[in-house]
Amino acid sequence: MLNIVHRVGMESKSTDDVYAALTTIEGLAGWWATDTTGETGVGGVIEFRFAPGGFDMLVLELVPGKRVLWEVVDGPPEWIGTTVRWDLKQVDDWAIVLFAHEGWAEPVEFMHHCSTKWATFLVSLKQLVETGTGAPEPYDLQVSDWH
Amino acid sequence: MLNIVHRVGMESKSTDDVYAALTTIEGLAGWWATDTTGETGVGGVIEFRFAPGGFDMLVLELVPGKRVLWEVVDGPPEWIGTTVRWDLKQVDDWAIVLFAHEGWAEPVEFMHHCSTKWATFLVSLKQLVETGTGAPEPYDLQVSDWH
Repeated sequence: MLNIVHRVGMESKSTDDVYAALTTIEGLAGWWATDTTGETGVGGVIEFRFAPGGFDMLVLELVPGKRVLWEVVDGPPEWIGTTVRWDLKQVDDWAIVLFAHEGWAEPVEFMHHCSTKWATFLVSLKQLVETGTGAPEPYDLQVSDWH
Repeated sequence: MLNIVHRVGMESKSTDDVYAALTTIEGLAGWWATDTTGETGVGGVIEFRFAPGGFDMLVLELVPGKRVLWEVVDGPPEWIGTTVRWDLKQVDDWAIVLFAHEGWAEPVEFMHHCSTKWATFLVSLKQLVETGTGAPEPYDLQVSDWH
């Protein structure tokens, strides 16, 4: 079992601000995929759509200001059954995000790509929460031939 | 044993261009740490210095245009003994970098932080190779309270 992990912080923000960006369609569409629809409550499925395809996330757990947990129920085969965990904590005036995309079966090249893309989208999330403007797809940073 | 992995690509560039940025002091200082000194040949030690400290890398392996392998011989305790591997390959007109920072003992919060920072420095490496200007420390993107 292999995991992608990241950590970002939002200055002069609260974990409630980050939580809102992870649990509302407007928030999610502001930093990850502009084309985001679905149900954001526990048991709901959120559909994120990108030019080459997309991901369907089942919302497994929501703890306001503290944690969001998704399971990938549709998308690329390497993603199905993996989980995406967001742990939030306040450190002074920083809202800290500990991110983990857990349960990759193999350290495939696509995992390398997704790790780098997650980092750029986490920076997008940081920018959205701090400034009101993120860089969701199709405005995201291209990191390679795989976009 | 835990690994940080990433993948970036440089458009209209060759793996020789990337290799030069990984194996010369001028190249390394152009995307990672402005304050970089040392010996870049096999058996040499390269000293990267940042505001809060630094890393000393022993060069274990060099295959022109294909691979660079370092071992961390001094730096934060979590880094010592880990290895940093750069595998390069050409895919049409893209120079592709598969990166792995291997051998973390525990999935500590600092590993999360380093994963995100590596991504931003790999984007800096991409920009250096593609445009001639990277964003090495102290011009790097701050991702959190840990810088």
